[in-house]
Amino acid sequence: MQIQWNELTEAQQAAALARPAQSNNPQLSEQVSDIIDRIRTNGDAALLDYTARFDGVNLATVKLSTEAKATALAQLGTDVKAAIDIAYRNIKAFHTAQMPKDVTLETQPGVLCELKHVALDAVGLYIPGGSAPLPSTVLMLGTTAQVAGCLRKVLVSPPNAQQSLAPEIIYAATLCGIDEIYLCGGAQAIAALALGTESIAKVDKIFGPGNSYVTEAKQQVALLAGGPAIDMPAGPSEVLVLADKDADADFVASDLLSQAEHGKDSQAILVTESQALAAAVELAVADQLARLSRQEIAAHAMQYARYIVCDDITQAIQVSNLYAPEHLIVQVTDTDTALAQLKYAGSIFVGPYSPESAGDYASGTNHVLPTYGYSRNYSSLGLLDFMRRFTVQTLSKAGLQDLGPAIMHLAEAEGLDAHKNAVAIRLAKLNAGTRDA
Amino acid sequence: MQIQWNELTEAQQAAALARPAQSNNPQLSEQVSDIIDRIRTNGDAALLDYTARFDGVNLATVKLSTEAKATALAQLGTDVKAAIDIAYRNIKAFHTAQMPKDVTLETQPGVLCELKHVALDAVGLYIPGGSAPLPSTVLMLGTTAQVAGCLRKVLVSPPNAQQSLAPEIIYAATLCGIDEIYLCGGAQAIAALALGTESIAKVDKIFGPGNSYVTEAKQQVALLAGGPAIDMPAGPSEVLVLADKDADADFVASDLLSQAEHGKDSQAILVTESQALAAAVELAVADQLARLSRQEIAAHAMQYARYIVCDDITQAIQVSNLYAPEHLIVQVTDTDTALAQLKYAGSIFVGPYSPESAGDYASGTNHVLPTYGYSRNYSSLGLLDFMRRFTVQTLSKAGLQDLGPAIMHLAEAEGLDAHKNAVAIRLAKLNAGTRDA
Ligand SMILES: [Zn+2]
Ligand SMILES: [Zn+2]
Repeated sequence: MQIQWNELTEAQQAAALARPAQSNNPQLSEQVSDIIDRIRTNGDAALLDYTARFDGVNLATVKLSTEAKATALAQLGTDVKAAIDIAYRNIKAFHTAQMPKDVTLETQPGVLCELKHVALDAVGLYIPGGSAPLPSTVLMLGTTAQVAGCLRKVLVSPPNAQQSLAPEIIYAATLCGIDEIYLCGGAQAIAALALGTESIAKVDKIFGPGNSYVTEAKQQVALLAGGPAIDMPAGPSEVLVLADKDADADFVASDLLSQAEHGKDSQAILVTESQALAAAVELAVADQLARLSRQEIAAHAMQYARYIVCDDITQAIQVSNLYAPEHLIVQVTDTDTALAQLKYAGSIFVGPYSPESAGDYASGTNHVLPTYGYSRNYSSLGLLDFMRRFTVQTLSKAGLQDLGPAIMHLAEAEGLDAHKNAVAIRLAKLNAGTRDA
Repeated sequence: MQIQWNELTEAQQAAALARPAQSNNPQLSEQVSDIIDRIRTNGDAALLDYTARFDGVNLATVKLSTEAKATALAQLGTDVKAAIDIAYRNIKAFHTAQMPKDVTLETQPGVLCELKHVALDAVGLYIPGGSAPLPSTVLMLGTTAQVAGCLRKVLVSPPNAQQSLAPEIIYAATLCGIDEIYLCGGAQAIAALALGTESIAKVDKIFGPGNSYVTEAKQQVALLAGGPAIDMPAGPSEVLVLADKDADADFVASDLLSQAEHGKDSQAILVTESQALAAAVELAVADQLARLSRQEIAAHAMQYARYIVCDDITQAIQVSNLYAPEHLIVQVTDTDTALAQLKYAGSIFVGPYSPESAGDYASGTNHVLPTYGYSRNYSSLGLLDFMRRFTVQTLSKAGLQDLGPAIMHLAEAEGLDAHKNAVAIRLAKLNAGTRDA
């Protein structure tokens, strides 16, 4: 659908950029809550039972066996193995470069403040099942956890009929140093990561995409008192391509379709200054779509694709900022000017040779990104998400003598006597000289 | 209550470190959900109505007037003003030192990856009302937002009978460059920040402590599709003091009581190697408690205080790691060895002259910290919480030619044709030489 931006009222403009409503589903929420309760009560037995019911696989144990692992690895193709190696190398390099520095600062004489970074102890990595394996998601989560230095990296994924996982998944996990792999999926796998079972010790934070059950389960366990942290809110995946009149219509079409094939609810938006380009992209989409294996899914999503035509690139940039896309592809001649004005995106792909699939797989950036407009509020997944920060302060005698009066005045203003007293008692002993050194 | 750690079974040990259960309150949850709905529908009118009902103050407008601001500032005492200045300076210095560096890395020739940091646009800072003002919370949130460079810093706090806020709050807000101050509190204030009203434009992230309504409202708005981010899960405040036989019992007692006076559900725990010290601290607590103005609250909390006696400091450190306290005070002779073994805390206070009140107010560290054991999963509040990160990738022709085959193999493994196609189309045109430069 071509949209002339300037012909719309403000309300119509907002509607043109609206995302699909996320409906609250009380039934789903109750089902998930029941699953969590059952995992809490019955642990592994419940987990195996759900796996039999939902995944149709009867397992004796939850843990992936060493034999199954070896069998799978022996089946791995050479090309895909080499490709996984390259992606792993780039992701590792880019996330290693994100290693934060501790801070040590004497804020005033005798008052030393420190900020320390350490890896989370135990992280749970959810890898969805489905018709095709997702080794790229293993790499995005697993490599980052490995670089952070997490002690336990726990991968969960629903088993295939061979009571195993795809060779690509297992190989990627091996590269990332993941030695705990469990065959379970859905809300029950999230519950097991959050609460622990006989086989699976609970983790501190849960990462990864999933269906509506997985998403709901992540939200519910994150709200439990003392529950695990989770990565970020979920939503349908989306791309916005910003293109000027000189952009290549075939390239633009291929990026819109990349997004569309992810799912029926994927959002694909072109924003351009050129009606001619918009028309050319529409044609190229029709042409390329006809040859895709996931044609049905992509075609469904492309029904809702928007081809927005603006007066000029400046206005097109404003539209992108209003939408705040997950993936933002910039195919304009003057990229520097555009990048200086573009405010929100999970990840930006610059120039004609940077397709979304580069970041999805192998450039080195993380493909777990804030969607649904959350690029305004949340960060792209990175090394820091696998670490935690805490502070340390050390006051010397002189430090407390200098700072003490300010602390006492503030404690008094807040009506907190005992806080004031904690300083007063120390200063009194110091001044009385009853303690030495 | 003195507890001999070694005399307990494992279950008793866990019980000794248990936090108060956080009960789910469906009625509270429904009330808050109704308040959010009414703010969504009726905006300012609902906000003013709730303020009249819950805070007993009839306002004409939500925004704090310039006159009320000037009147309040004229009333500010000199001592507390100077104390706020000192705290502000130290907090600003320590949070400025946390400024992250952008990352630029060519992961392989022609594949440039960047990680950029920018401030969140608009942040909402909730400051609770109550018998005494909380300027320290304004400083902790406001200074950090200012250092990050947030464009809008929106402070909300319930009004006093003079249709204003305490001078200390207003002065601290002025220092932090906060020019949007609204007189509202409770769940309705959180709803206004999240959804916006005629007076208050909505924000991207909400920070700050509050009562059970505020906490519930923060959780609910964070779950709305496209809702704001929030700072971290809430829970009763807590301190664990790790002390050896040479620690000063008066100092230790004053730190336990500082925590206890925060609220009836505050947790105060001493872990020591020395039964004599534990006994001395118990006496000192009784002695100091008798003179506190918030004696009733502190006494209530101290009923549940635990004085845990271990075999040695190594075991005491293990107990601290099991508990994962919000505030951890280390009063032992060999602090270096202890710090190397202590794993979890929101903030650590080292040595006899570093009372908890130093960090609460003025050392420079942030006093918004993960409690309820969340120091295992979450970070202490810091500059990064007021910023967001996103990535940028730029592939040159040569970069895509080199990396393209790996991307295509991975896309094929994941059954994503269009992703493969986005590369194939580009490589085909490049190889055909139909595009130049
Ligand atoms: Zn994709
Ligand atoms: Zn305190």
